[in-house]
Amino acid sequence: MFGFRSDTHCPDTLARTGLLTTPHGEVETPVFMPVGTQGTVKAVAPWDLRTLGAKIILGNAYHLYLRPGHERIAELGGLQRFTGWHGPMLTDSGGFQVFSLAHIRSVDDDGVRFRSHIDGSEHYLTPERVMEIEQALGADVAMVLDEPAGFPSSPEETLSATERTHRWAARCLASHTRRDQALFAIVQGGLDGDQRRYSATTLAAMDFPGYAIGGLSIGEPKTETWGMVEAAVAALPPEKPRYLMGVGSPLDLLDGVARGVDMFDCSFPTRIARNGALLTAEGRVNITNARFRDQAGPIQAGCDCLTCAEFSAAYIHHLFMSNELLSFQLATIHNLRFIFRLMEDVRSALRDGRFDAFRRTFSAGHIETDPEVRTLQKAKWKAARAKTPAL
Amino acid sequence: MFGFRSDTHCPDTLARTGLLTTPHGEVETPVFMPVGTQGTVKAVAPWDLRTLGAKIILGNAYHLYLRPGHERIAELGGLQRFTGWHGPMLTDSGGFQVFSLAHIRSVDDDGVRFRSHIDGSEHYLTPERVMEIEQALGADVAMVLDEPAGFPSSPEETLSATERTHRWAARCLASHTRRDQALFAIVQGGLDGDQRRYSATTLAAMDFPGYAIGGLSIGEPKTETWGMVEAAVAALPPEKPRYLMGVGSPLDLLDGVARGVDMFDCSFPTRIARNGALLTAEGRVNITNARFRDQAGPIQAGCDCLTCAEFSAAYIHHLFMSNELLSFQLATIHNLRFIFRLMEDVRSALRDGRFDAFRRTFSAGHIETDPEVRTLQKAKWKAARAKTPAL
Repeated sequence: MFGFRSDTHCPDTLARTGLLTTPHGEVETPVFMPVGTQGTVKAVAPWDLRTLGAKIILGNAYHLYLRPGHERIAELGGLQRFTGWHGPMLTDSGGFQVFSLAHIRSVDDDGVRFRSHIDGSEHYLTPERVMEIEQALGADVAMVLDEPAGFPSSPEETLSATERTHRWAARCLASHTRRDQALFAIVQGGLDGDQRRYSATTLAAMDFPGYAIGGLSIGEPKTETWGMVEAAVAALPPEKPRYLMGVGSPLDLLDGVARGVDMFDCSFPTRIARNGALLTAEGRVNITNARFRDQAGPIQAGCDCLTCAEFSAAYIHHLFMSNELLSFQLATIHNLRFIFRLMEDVRSALRDGRFDAFRRTFSAGHIETDPEVRTLQKAKWKAARAKTPAL
Repeated sequence: MFGFRSDTHCPDTLARTGLLTTPHGEVETPVFMPVGTQGTVKAVAPWDLRTLGAKIILGNAYHLYLRPGHERIAELGGLQRFTGWHGPMLTDSGGFQVFSLAHIRSVDDDGVRFRSHIDGSEHYLTPERVMEIEQALGADVAMVLDEPAGFPSSPEETLSATERTHRWAARCLASHTRRDQALFAIVQGGLDGDQRRYSATTLAAMDFPGYAIGGLSIGEPKTETWGMVEAAVAALPPEKPRYLMGVGSPLDLLDGVARGVDMFDCSFPTRIARNGALLTAEGRVNITNARFRDQAGPIQAGCDCLTCAEFSAAYIHHLFMSNELLSFQLATIHNLRFIFRLMEDVRSALRDGRFDAFRRTFSAGHIETDPEVRTLQKAKWKAARAKTPAL
């Protein structure tokens, strides 16, 4: 029921096209997966997501376990039926969220004890319990429970988290029984290339149907991010899909594709949209800027999104200035469509053997300014780590 | 370009069906018009409004004059093009908003001086200026600037506001020149039946293409509301459309239709939706109630709205509990569709000669509990009046 095959390979880079087959449909790769943490891509209804060209959506096991509860979702027919998104889905295990959002009480080899960020209630998650949760949710792809290394962290701390991640991956694999769900492993190893290779090699030997690269884009310099991706990809089996977690700005997507990544997720395009930051070919613009007050044309000329087809930039500006709820929907639609179109262009450039040229042209014209994503995540990490008594 | 003809008349009540012809399309009456104060029906995109069955949408001249400015909207192609709602529209003059939201500095026969509720800036509106604003906005129907009587107010205060409303109506009519826009008068007269009749008769003599009944549903008992509507309707020309402003709960709609009202607007269904109050045949339910946590069926069995077609009540409950933005969109869609369907049923019952039976059956099964709308408006009035130095 689950499969992956890679097709065209870029002659100049590690980029490739591929096709992911899941119980809920096929997904062309490279693909960007919008984040629907709590069972909804914030501010956008599933029918608009389909129109926009979304193919596979994320949910988060940590969040959905806490609220409304995985057993409830299972009783209501599973995550797809619950959320009205009938296509392919992937659930993150919540490893990252437990270690960044929750108040950790203790972590040992057995599992992690934490207090909910919602109501302070105490919970205990083990690899086996997380498999129970993700199997109840029933997405097409589930992720193992992992322990990302903190940033910064010492080589010993990183190694300890990475090896625990491997032991937990093996336990996840052993307890995962759902035949209509693929379980992906997560490569860790902090910012240490050797540890990344070690992690990828170790997990590759366990023969998962797919591999993610986790614990990156949390505040480290980009050169380090890509060094870690390169180290992991080199040691992962080429016939399996590769998924880079938490990365999704336009330039990062192109850089990730060039390094052989097939799948991406990130809250970046949807989150910045709700702050009025809209993606254009040249980079992001803030729609609340006074220069948009009288712009009769759309946010970006030629954009084929529902928002640009119907509304002037002046109207979107007005919605943001007036604190109107519709602003969130229309801005999110624009940013998601921008990213989906970018990935469509990437796939078509790959098939035509001109990916490298496409990437260079796009990157030359596109400026990424705001390091807000990384700064935010860094702050979250620091706060979470400060609260942790034992790691 | 503008016309109205009434068709079927109910044998038992004053209810009637009709057809409003406007430059942007035809509207079957009785009709409910969703409120899009700032140029958007809160939380719902125009494409979803069309799917739901919305036929004519309101904008508010006071709000749009303050932000983004009527001249800007005119330069951007007018209200329809600006908002992406290409069907018929109506703009309220903002008389009610000036007297309830703004900080009034002075009112005399010439006009009203007030401070903006947004930024405290001082503005001066006269009947002529309001016509300029509404003609720039370019809706199919514009409303005259009126002065609603406060509640409570003495007979002398009421008469003074009512007579000023008449003088202002005449000045609006004299300065209104746009041929593709119909100007409706507004009957005032407080809670005094004689003054209501006097107001309706006076305005009827000026031969407006349509008549609204204003200044009601602001805290008075319902029997008084309907007494005033009856007094006004009896004195208004039967060949012109009648529009009851600010009334829109299910039972009020039926009671208004029975008294000969053709058009209604109210923020009620959209506003309560954002608080999680959802309309059902039996009355409204609060979706945040724990009893919906596990409800696999829709909010209302058999409801044909986009929300009920796709989602369980449990999912809507989850969205509200999780403070997800999608909650506002899905709840608003449900409530608006409920009201549109009710009006479709009303028109079809009228055409089949069974309106009175339909009304009785619906009303017997439907409980309206929460007087929140009236209470809120009453509080606003009191606050606004308290700030007013001279009226």
